[in-house]
Amino acid sequence: MPALNETTAPGGVDATHDAALRCWVARADGHADFPIQNLPFGVFSPGAQAPLRGGVAIGDSILELGAALRAGLFTGEAERAASAAAGENLNAFLAMGAAPRQALRARLSAMLSAGSPDQRMAEGCLHRAADCTLHLPARVGDYTDFYVGIHHATNVGRVFRPDNPLLPNYKYVPIGYHGRASSLRVSGTDVRRPKGQLKAADADAPRFAPCEKLDYELELGIWIGPGNPLGQPVPVAEAAQQVAGYCLLNDWSARDIQAWEYQPLGPFLAKNFGSTISAWVVTPEALAPFRIAQPARPDGDPAPLPHLLDEADQRQGAFDIQLEVLISTPLMREKGLPPHRLSRSNTRHMYWTVAQMVAHHTSGGCNLNPGDLLGSGTISAPDAAGFGSLLETTRAGKEPVTLSSGETRSFLKDGDEIVLRARAVRDGAVSIGFGECRARILPAV
Amino acid sequence: MPALNETTAPGGVDATHDAALRCWVARADGHADFPIQNLPFGVFSPGAQAPLRGGVAIGDSILELGAALRAGLFTGEAERAASAAAGENLNAFLAMGAAPRQALRARLSAMLSAGSPDQRMAEGCLHRAADCTLHLPARVGDYTDFYVGIHHATNVGRVFRPDNPLLPNYKYVPIGYHGRASSLRVSGTDVRRPKGQLKAADADAPRFAPCEKLDYELELGIWIGPGNPLGQPVPVAEAAQQVAGYCLLNDWSARDIQAWEYQPLGPFLAKNFGSTISAWVVTPEALAPFRIAQPARPDGDPAPLPHLLDEADQRQGAFDIQLEVLISTPLMREKGLPPHRLSRSNTRHMYWTVAQMVAHHTSGGCNLNPGDLLGSGTISAPDAAGFGSLLETTRAGKEPVTLSSGETRSFLKDGDEIVLRARAVRDGAVSIGFGECRARILPAV
Repeated sequence: MPALNETTAPGGVDATHDAALRCWVARADGHADFPIQNLPFGVFSPGAQAPLRGGVAIGDSILELGAALRAGLFTGEAERAASAAAGENLNAFLAMGAAPRQALRARLSAMLSAGSPDQRMAEGCLHRAADCTLHLPARVGDYTDFYVGIHHATNVGRVFRPDNPLLPNYKYVPIGYHGRASSLRVSGTDVRRPKGQLKAADADAPRFAPCEKLDYELELGIWIGPGNPLGQPVPVAEAAQQVAGYCLLNDWSARDIQAWEYQPLGPFLAKNFGSTISAWVVTPEALAPFRIAQPARPDGDPAPLPHLLDEADQRQGAFDIQLEVLISTPLMREKGLPPHRLSRSNTRHMYWTVAQMVAHHTSGGCNLNPGDLLGSGTISAPDAAGFGSLLETTRAGKEPVTLSSGETRSFLKDGDEIVLRARAVRDGAVSIGFGECRARILPAV
Repeated sequence: MPALNETTAPGGVDATHDAALRCWVARADGHADFPIQNLPFGVFSPGAQAPLRGGVAIGDSILELGAALRAGLFTGEAERAASAAAGENLNAFLAMGAAPRQALRARLSAMLSAGSPDQRMAEGCLHRAADCTLHLPARVGDYTDFYVGIHHATNVGRVFRPDNPLLPNYKYVPIGYHGRASSLRVSGTDVRRPKGQLKAADADAPRFAPCEKLDYELELGIWIGPGNPLGQPVPVAEAAQQVAGYCLLNDWSARDIQAWEYQPLGPFLAKNFGSTISAWVVTPEALAPFRIAQPARPDGDPAPLPHLLDEADQRQGAFDIQLEVLISTPLMREKGLPPHRLSRSNTRHMYWTVAQMVAHHTSGGCNLNPGDLLGSGTISAPDAAGFGSLLETTRAGKEPVTLSSGETRSFLKDGDEIVLRARAVRDGAVSIGFGECRARILPAV
C-alpha cells in the first residue's frame, strides 16, 4: 500500500491512479464514471426506509463504509477517516483534511484491487447502486456562487454593454456572491418553476406570474474541507488544502425575475428557488492527473494581485475536465429519443483557480466551514456550442435552439429535464466521472 | 393564568402586558430592557467552562429553563416549549411556532409575578446576568439581508443618481440578498477590520489594503420560526406566524471594498467579515403593544402587488420601536466620557413589513428554516440625526461628524465601539428593550 497519507499535495499522482489497476467489483473496470481510480464519497440509503449512511461509488455498486468498518477492513488513519465518513453526512470527514482522506483512498484502492485478500469480506459491504437512493453528501452551512467563467461573464455583459462587456473589476476580483443553502437539492429531485415579479420593458408595472425565462447554469461545485477561523484569511498557497472535493452544480436561474430584481444588491429570488448538485464528492486526489496550468491570461490582462498569486497554483491549479449539458423533453421521452446535447465545455475556461476563489473569499477574514459549497459560476466555452446557459445559447431567447426532436427552446418548458455530466480523460489515463446532476422542471403552483 | 396558548395572533395584547404587573425578581420592575412584560429567550453559560443552555432575561437576572424544568415548574404545552428552549440553541423552540411559545410566556409571567407560589422554587433557577456569557441564540442556517429602510435606500441611491435615487423596482420588490451566516457573532465579540481590494477613482488598478471606510448599519433582525417546505410559498396573511422573534443587527460594511466589488452580483467581502446581533430573542408577543399600522405610502407610490398585500398586515404589521446608535472611542474610554449618540431612528421607517419580507422571500418557493435570520436593512430616519450608517451621516465621508469628545469621524477607527439599542415605549406601556448589540473594531491583521 503506498504511503499516500504522507502525500498531502493535491497534485500528486501515485499508484491509485495507475491505469493498469484492475478491480474485482463487477463492471468497475472501464466504468465511465466510477472505476477504481475514482473512489468518490457520498451518502446513500439502500432502501426507502433505511437510514442514511456514507459510501464509496465503485462501478455500478456502492461500498458501505460502516459495514466495512464493522468487518474490520480499516485500521489506523484510514479507519478514523472511514468512521467520519460512515454516518448520515460527510461533514466530519470533509473537516479532516487531506491526509486522512488520502489514507482512506489508498486503503480503499488496495481493498478493491483485483487479487486483494479482502475481497470476500468487502463483497459483503457492497450494494447495487440501482437499488439505492443518493442524498446530499453534507449539511451545507453557506453556499457561495462565483462568476469565474469568463466567456459566460462576457456573453452576459455583452447584452448590456456591447462594446465593453466585462466590468473593470472582473480581472482583479474573483466575483462572487452569497447563495441560498437551504434550497440545494441532490440530483434527481424535481425543481418547481418559480413565480415572481416579471416586468416587460414596455409595461408600467410588474406582474406576479410564473417565470417565463427559466434557465440552467453549468457549474463546477467545490466542497470545503477544514475551513478557517473568522478573521484568519487562507493564503492562496494553502488554499488547495481547504478543498475536500468537487461536484456538478446546476444553478437554475429565472432570467425574467432576475432582470427586474437584481439592482442594486444582486440576484435573490431568481436563484434561490432551487439548485441541483451531483451526489458524489470527487476528491482532489482522483482529479490529480487532470491538473493543468492555469491558462495564460490574454495579452494586456493585469496580473493577479499578490495575495491571489501563487506559482504552484499557476502551474497546476486548473483542471482539464470535460463538461456537457443534455436536455430531455417530454416529447423525446414519449418518442424514446435520446437526450439532446445542448453544450460541451471544459473547466479550463475558468478565469480564476479554485485556490484563488478560496483565498479571495477569506481575504477579508470570512470564515469557511466544513461542508460549505462554492460554485464556479457558469462555465461556458468560447464558442456557441459550449455555452453554459440558454441565455447565452439562444441570445436571451432571440435565437431559439432546435433540438434533435425538432422542437425548439428559447428557455426551459415544464417537463424538460436537464442533465449535467463531467468527465476527466487525459493522455490514456482512465476516465473519471462525476455521476449525473439531473433534475426535471415541474409546473408552477 | 390567561389562556394565552389559544391566542396565536401576533397582535394580541393580554394580561402579560399589563403595566401594573409586578415581579418578585430584584430590579425587574422598571428595568429598562427586561421587565416582566418582556421575557425574551436566549442562550447563556453561567461560567467560562459551563455548557450552553437556554434562559429567559428578567431584570438583571437570567432564569435557567432547564433548572426550572427539573424543579417541576412547567406542565403541558409550556413544559414542551421550555424543554425545546432549554438546550444549547433555540432552534427546536423557534420551530414550534406561536402557540407553545405563548403558553410558555404565560406560564413564565405567572411564575415570576409578585405573589407567585412558585417564587421559592424559581429563585433557585436564577443566575446573575453579569456572571453569565451570552451566546448566539440559534444555529443560523441562512441569513438574508433586506433593504427596506427607504430613507437609507434613498440616501445611498442619491450618491449615484442625484435626481432619481430610488431604482424603479424599489416600491414593488422588497429588495433583499443572501448574506453570510457563518460570520454572525453575538454582541460583545470584537470585529476585525477587513483587508480587501480598494480602488481609488483615479487609480489604474486596485491595491490590497486594510479597509479605510469601515461603517456600521443599524438593522432589525428577524428570527424565523417554523419555516416552509421548498416550493410552497408562505401567503402574506400567514407570514407573521413564521416570525419567532426579533433582535438588533449591526451589518458592518466596508464601503471601499463594496464600491469596487459589488457590480454585477452585489456585496460580498464588503459584508461577510462579520455581522453582530444582540443576544436575546424578543418575541412577537412582547412587542404586541407596539404594533402600528404600516405608514401610508406617499401619494403616487404604487400599491403592493396582491401577493404582498394583506389588510390585517397593513393595519398592524409595522412596529413603533425606537432605535439608537452609540459610539465609544478609545479616547472617550480613556477620559471616562460616556458614549456619543450617533443616531436615533425607529422601525416605523421600514417601507415593507416583516410579513411582506417573508412572503416575498418565499414567493418563488424558497424554503425558510427555523433559526434562519432576516435583516431589515439599514433603518434610517428621514432626518440626518437619524441616519443609520456613517455613509449617510457623513455624506460618504465628506462631512465628518464631530463627537462629544471633540474627535471627528468620517468612518470608524480601530478601537471604536458601536452599540445599537432598541426600546419600545408607547402610551404608558412598560418599556421593552432588546439588550445591547455591541462590538469593538480590532485593527486589521
